[in-house]
Amino acid sequence: MKRLLIIGIGAGDPDHLTFQGAKAIAAADVFLLVDKGEAKDDLTRLRRDLIAAHGREPYRIVEARDPERDRTAPAYTAAVENWRSRRADIYESFVTDELADGQTGALLVWGDPGVYDSTLAALDEIDAEFEYDVIPGISSVSALTARHRVTLTRVGRPVHLTTGRRLAADGPTGDDVLVMLDAACSFAGTADDFHIYWGAYLGTPDEILISGPVTEVADRIRAVRAEARARKGWIMDTYLLRRTNCRPGPLRSPNGSLRDLS
Amino acid sequence: MKRLLIIGIGAGDPDHLTFQGAKAIAAADVFLLVDKGEAKDDLTRLRRDLIAAHGREPYRIVEARDPERDRTAPAYTAAVENWRSRRADIYESFVTDELADGQTGALLVWGDPGVYDSTLAALDEIDAEFEYDVIPGISSVSALTARHRVTLTRVGRPVHLTTGRRLAADGPTGDDVLVMLDAACSFAGTADDFHIYWGAYLGTPDEILISGPVTEVADRIRAVRAEARARKGWIMDTYLLRRTNCRPGPLRSPNGSLRDLS
Repeated sequence: MKRLLIIGIGAGDPDHLTFQGAKAIAAADVFLLVDKGEAKDDLTRLRRDLIAAHGREPYRIVEARDPERDRTAPAYTAAVENWRSRRADIYESFVTDELADGQTGALLVWGDPGVYDSTLAALDEIDAEFEYDVIPGISSVSALTARHRVTLTRVGRPVHLTTGRRLAADGPTGDDVLVMLDAACSFAGTADDFHIYWGAYLGTPDEILISGPVTEVADRIRAVRAEARARKGWIMDTYLLRRTNCRPGPLRSPNGSLRDLS
Repeated sequence: MKRLLIIGIGAGDPDHLTFQGAKAIAAADVFLLVDKGEAKDDLTRLRRDLIAAHGREPYRIVEARDPERDRTAPAYTAAVENWRSRRADIYESFVTDELADGQTGALLVWGDPGVYDSTLAALDEIDAEFEYDVIPGISSVSALTARHRVTLTRVGRPVHLTTGRRLAADGPTGDDVLVMLDAACSFAGTADDFHIYWGAYLGTPDEILISGPVTEVADRIRAVRAEARARKGWIMDTYLLRRTNCRPGPLRSPNGSLRDLS
């Protein structure tokens, strides 16, 4: 049997790697590196560094070029699914052509493989025989809140993880909303009483952190984001929106009585 | 100046520790271990093991007993806040009495310090001069989804993190809901079309994983959970509810036109 390890490598700091992740890298015979093009060189460099630091000789590295995603397509999900199918083809070739029976292949995934990442969904489309395991990683969500020294969740209250596209369409769907994949700075459209904790290039030497009332810092974030994106050629950012001075509404308890949470 | 390090140690597997976490442990002069009582011995044992493995001599360990939380109080948040204030007293004594100027103290936090953990909020209440940093950890959320080999998020769609108490009161507030702190197995009240990915003691030798349509596996989870809790004296579990066969509703795009995401 062939085996695949899907390894979460953390949000950008090589020290985000877990010991489990390091052991998984050491267990791999072949690595697949999918190159996103020159602009995102930094992203593949971290993967190469981690393989060099933790890989156990002899190992091989197989390179592939990430399929282009049509970012102008009106149907976002369809465009992602199309791109994912072409990614699945790459994974299928890797398993079929590059892994011998009994060998272990590894994919190094930025952040956590469970958080807005297409690797696992693409693997579901593969027509090949293999086993696989998933190694959790530090997501940019955890990295963001740690660097801002805030919690993602408040006592007894929910948090919503969503995308910039959804935020723009639906507005904030709760008092605590974590937003990823927002190229349009959709936070600027939120109401006055939100505080934002924003971060880009988390865990890297380029890390930028800005926080404050949205009304006060939105313009600065937009300017800093545009400048950094132009300078580096890419940006990965995420943020937490937190409604301040809010009182949670009364919560209906399981037995039907009303309780005031505040 | 005194310094505190709030270190996320992961969901139960010692190999969930990150290299950053290990370096933070090595940088500490004094550790505060808050003991939750005999029943949760396993929880303090992991902390002791990690300190023994990564601590740098000479270091000291200071022990304190976790204040009792009134679990019968009708006002959940008030009860948590009361308990947290008494926790804050423990932290304040630690910083004031156990840390000398220039020394570094460390608190080892289960999972990720940002996810349903009271440590950071308790630190806000401390009346003492100190600096602190937060080291992100593998949350039980990441551990759960990795072990079930599912993603927390689906393409372009939100996920809600919430508590069992909230789920019981509000029902599932979306198609993808991650539930923590559910002693009442509130998933059993959800509609027919939800799939559940449930896990307990994640990352430990006692790990239990069950998944399937809620209607088919709810009774089994309840029975397994009750048996494990009785046997070990405590349980930590979490689960993801995912509505199956659902089509995302039409999404209003930023420019006001309607798009069908499916």
